Amino acid sequence: MDLTKISSPSFLKDLNKKQLEALAGEIRAFLIEKCSITGGHIGPNLGVVELTIALHKAFNSPKDKFLWDVGHQAYVHKILTGRASQFDTLRQFKGLCGFPKLVESEHDIWETGHSSTSLSAAMGMAAARDIKGDKNFVVPIIGDGALTGGMALEALNHIGHEKTNMIVILNDNEMSIAPNVGALHDVLGRLRTAKEYSRAKEDLESLIHKIPMVGDKLAATAERVKDSLKYLVVSGVFFEELGFKYLGPIDGHDFEALEKTLEYAKKVQGPVLVHVLTKKGKGYKPAEDDTIGTWHGTGPYKMETGAFVKSSTKGPAWSSLVAESVRKCMKEDNRIVTITPAMPVGSKLEGIQKDFPNRFFDVGIAEQHATTMAAGLATQHMKPFLSIYSTFLQRAYDQVLHDIARPNLNVFIGIDRAGLVGADGETHQGVFDISFLRHIPNIVLMMPKDENEGQHMVKTAIDYNDGPIALRYPRGNGLGVEMDAEMKALPIGSWEVLREGTDAVILTFGTTIPMAMKAAEQLAYQGIDVRVVNARFIKPMDEAMLHEIMQENLPILTIEESLLQGGFGSAVLEFAFDKKYRNVQIERIGIPDEFIEHGEVDLLLEEINVTAEEAVKRITQLVPNKQSDRVK
Amino acid sequence: MDLTKISSPSFLKDLNKKQLEALAGEIRAFLIEKCSITGGHIGPNLGVVELTIALHKAFNSPKDKFLWDVGHQAYVHKILTGRASQFDTLRQFKGLCGFPKLVESEHDIWETGHSSTSLSAAMGMAAARDIKGDKNFVVPIIGDGALTGGMALEALNHIGHEKTNMIVILNDNEMSIAPNVGALHDVLGRLRTAKEYSRAKEDLESLIHKIPMVGDKLAATAERVKDSLKYLVVSGVFFEELGFKYLGPIDGHDFEALEKTLEYAKKVQGPVLVHVLTKKGKGYKPAEDDTIGTWHGTGPYKMETGAFVKSSTKGPAWSSLVAESVRKCMKEDNRIVTITPAMPVGSKLEGIQKDFPNRFFDVGIAEQHATTMAAGLATQHMKPFLSIYSTFLQRAYDQVLHDIARPNLNVFIGIDRAGLVGADGETHQGVFDISFLRHIPNIVLMMPKDENEGQHMVKTAIDYNDGPIALRYPRGNGLGVEMDAEMKALPIGSWEVLREGTDAVILTFGTTIPMAMKAAEQLAYQGIDVRVVNARFIKPMDEAMLHEIMQENLPILTIEESLLQGGFGSAVLEFAFDKKYRNVQIERIGIPDEFIEHGEVDLLLEEINVTAEEAVKRITQLVPNKQSDRVK
Repeated sequence: MDLTKISSPSFLKDLNKKQLEALAGEIRAFLIEKCSITGGHIGPNLGVVELTIALHKAFNSPKDKFLWDVGHQAYVHKILTGRASQFDTLRQFKGLCGFPKLVESEHDIWETGHSSTSLSAAMGMAAARDIKGDKNFVVPIIGDGALTGGMALEALNHIGHEKTNMIVILNDNEMSIAPNVGALHDVLGRLRTAKEYSRAKEDLESLIHKIPMVGDKLAATAERVKDSLKYLVVSGVFFEELGFKYLGPIDGHDFEALEKTLEYAKKVQGPVLVHVLTKKGKGYKPAEDDTIGTWHGTGPYKMETGAFVKSSTKGPAWSSLVAESVRKCMKEDNRIVTITPAMPVGSKLEGIQKDFPNRFFDVGIAEQHATTMAAGLATQHMKPFLSIYSTFLQRAYDQVLHDIARPNLNVFIGIDRAGLVGADGETHQGVFDISFLRHIPNIVLMMPKDENEGQHMVKTAIDYNDGPIALRYPRGNGLGVEMDAEMKALPIGSWEVLREGTDAVILTFGTTIPMAMKAAEQLAYQGIDVRVVNARFIKPMDEAMLHEIMQENLPILTIEESLLQGGFGSAVLEFAFDKKYRNVQIERIGIPDEFIEHGEVDLLLEEINVTAEEAVKRITQLVPNKQSDRVK
Repeated sequence: MDLTKISSPSFLKDLNKKQLEALAGEIRAFLIEKCSITGGHIGPNLGVVELTIALHKAFNSPKDKFLWDVGHQAYVHKILTGRASQFDTLRQFKGLCGFPKLVESEHDIWETGHSSTSLSAAMGMAAARDIKGDKNFVVPIIGDGALTGGMALEALNHIGHEKTNMIVILNDNEMSIAPNVGALHDVLGRLRTAKEYSRAKEDLESLIHKIPMVGDKLAATAERVKDSLKYLVVSGVFFEELGFKYLGPIDGHDFEALEKTLEYAKKVQGPVLVHVLTKKGKGYKPAEDDTIGTWHGTGPYKMETGAFVKSSTKGPAWSSLVAESVRKCMKEDNRIVTITPAMPVGSKLEGIQKDFPNRFFDVGIAEQHATTMAAGLATQHMKPFLSIYSTFLQRAYDQVLHDIARPNLNVFIGIDRAGLVGADGETHQGVFDISFLRHIPNIVLMMPKDENEGQHMVKTAIDYNDGPIALRYPRGNGLGVEMDAEMKALPIGSWEVLREGTDAVILTFGTTIPMAMKAAEQLAYQGIDVRVVNARFIKPMDEAMLHEIMQENLPILTIEESLLQGGFGSAVLEFAFDKKYRNVQIERIGIPDEFIEHGEVDLLLEEINVTAEEAVKRITQLVPNKQSDRVK
């Protein structure tokens, strides 16, 4: 069938098994083709084709509520709810979002991006339903990886206690982003192979029935034993202890098993957990064969071979650069321990994992635990390197503040994907970390101008023993600069003049430095001589240099790929006023007070006026006389 | 014995049971007396007297590591480690801290205040030990309430999977702060009464032994059944599924049981969970009889009767004022649902709980879940009131940002204990929320000048339907002002001139308004005429009024009981520059870039120069001519 003709999932009700299977095949082929061009989360979506079809057949969306945890596995849901024709624009500027999006469809009732939120939100929706006396199903779909996030466990604990009607679909593909870890993962592993236990239970029941009931005592015993039988079988006991009815495990690619189980689940009172086994990448061999998570989310690839289309990049990937620099330091410094919350692949930590298995911990999707575990290591004079995406560090704000910065512990936080990230969009933009870290006492925060300075900053962080230090680095690749053979520590709080100038100063750091240099060149052509400073330490700032600039009374422009509210530019304003530079002129360029959608970073920056052109305009306004001099 | 003579816990090794019991009695009497004068967390500490003694007898602190989760139950630990003589200064300015504190003792190896951190930190310490090849025990002591915090569950999941050697003491008193909730609490409840299950297991074993083994088939069946027996008994299966050896439950007031179990735990390989039953308030009748949490933490009380010493207060407690205002609204507005993460008593929500049991949720210590559950409710057009302490909202930063503000959902966040909180100290000061909320798009943030404005702000929040709105209010009591009979909504973003003046302007809000008024009066006496503005909306600010002030070119002083970095004053600076008021003079008073310790709020404010005197000084500097005019 023509998938772009689908406008609503209601047609599924009339399809038989054969037709459903045919549809699943078509959707798979569609996804494999479309994602080969746009890139996207192909692996997770291929795994849930049958599950998504079965859910839309069994329930009535949007009256019944589907909550896709994390949300990157909602492509099939998007196809079935009338959005197939938009897949050519997937994850592109103004195009189809890679996650559920309220404005796209009435069937998208919960927006996500970060993991482990679906059960809490579902509890809210179910509570609303029960208060209002409505009748509908609430169906969160959560992966085995997301289930280990603390807030999902908090929610399980609450839902099970309240006995709220809810059907939780546990989409168990044994791999969320990287192979999963954790005791719960072990629990699921046992459930997957729980058949022998089921048989043991049946055996015991028949055994008891066969026992000749001689005398009251034995009968009473047998009675008590029967009461205890519910605990005999390992199957689901973990979830049943938490108050859930456990159903499964079932084959997530078998329409009959799915339909039967979902129909049964609809009849159960109280919370149910349906344990569905799926195969990530199902139906596309390169993705099926993936064991480490390469096919979780990808760029474009050749459909026939699964070979990734290499984008032309200059320098090394930032994640690799930082990870490899840390790995070098780990060879010589036994104090260093690397921790990641489920991002060994994304943050390129495989080399560390391989070389130092005893000093490497992938704790799963558990940012809070990862952060405070780092604090615990630091109390014992180890040097933890906590590698974490900017957007996920949001989950550990309190742990950074309360457990690391307050007692001033020596933790090195590597903030990956800082700044705009592009295709993943507004849930993943790493634009808040400066505003939420800068006000925390004791913390050092820095960002390098290029990969060579990046490696020196790794060394700076490793050598620093006066408290927490964070290194933020962007998504994507370095500039391709020459690398020094030796890593060397930079003086804390030291900035660097990249270009001399006497008419105005641009203070900037990281990815916006080339933009500043370009603006300075254009302004030079207008006769305005701009100094460009690499403000590589966001906290503490180079106060000596700031005093110098403000004493010269030069107009200042700050540029940052980060929030204006409470950001680096604000820090400069605060300095100017606190030090009583009454007449200093300061302009700020950065991200305005709004959430930034998905799209190519360059397009996004243009959209919000973080550009060299804007810098030229602002400086021209700040130095009007100079220009009019020239015009005269 | 004279408790103040204790310098180290080593003397415990030689004491026999009788002597230990005598010591426990003396410590109880000491605590009841001391806390009757200073106030403090008397209930939790009376519950762990025997447990703490037994721990210090069984282990060798500080080589072995005790991590007191939350930390308010460490008074006995402080006494046994040489700090009894300091109890007269408990929780007072420059006195003994109410929580473990690294600088106080080598036996305090983990600082806390917020709950659920101990297991993650213990995992870090245990990992460090194993990497270094050291031999010591790591012993986190965690309450049944704290165990439901997401990060503790994340840690259990990781520790159980890694099979790390660790002895977790589960201090189960069935009540953390308020009576505990959650499915895990139900699990523990079943464990407490698990004797019948144990007996059933024994019964079954004997039953199987009695079965005549006729034929291979039955024998094989019986064999399989025996293999399955470990799952038969409910006892500990939840924790054993997570990879922990479960020991318990044991009586936490029985020295013999404690000693026997701890010695056994020391021999176990891998992680152990020792389930200890204690009685909160044990040995002091008023505290023992408490069923709702009144004796969790108290002010001074009459030792003989347990009657609380009433402090002379003017207005109603802020928590009551807000809770009662919400309760009034709930009568008329069925959309309102109140959620608290374990603070029904602290935030005075008992009236709501009683009147609207179906629209009230105490989710336990689970700030992340509480916040996103509120978001889920809001998607269904309910109006959730999330009541949460400022310091604990730190735990839900990402949930506010990603789940509430990003989709712009109508959640009303009541931020209790905003500003300095006093005796609880640096882990509890509510001084970060403005800096971590202000930069989040879509949020409205406000703070009232008095309890009458407070009730109007509740109405404002309830009536507001354009996104998230947060009302911060301080610890302690209102000013005793007259209350309007009707609650009325304020215009969003509207400030209020409290005192006219033409020489300078003070912009402030909440608790610092009286300070500003006092400064203005003093300045009037010097001939400086200061306008005082109630900047009750921190975001959005009253831009019309700001334009007016800046167009008049009046010098501005901002005062806030909140961080200077990224705070309200910074917002004023940002406004001034973004709107190109090039010559406006602004000074800021607020909390400097450091953590603020415990002590009476007035003393703390004096220490950090947030005072009327400082305001007078700053304004005098801003308006030098005026003063010199007068001096002439």
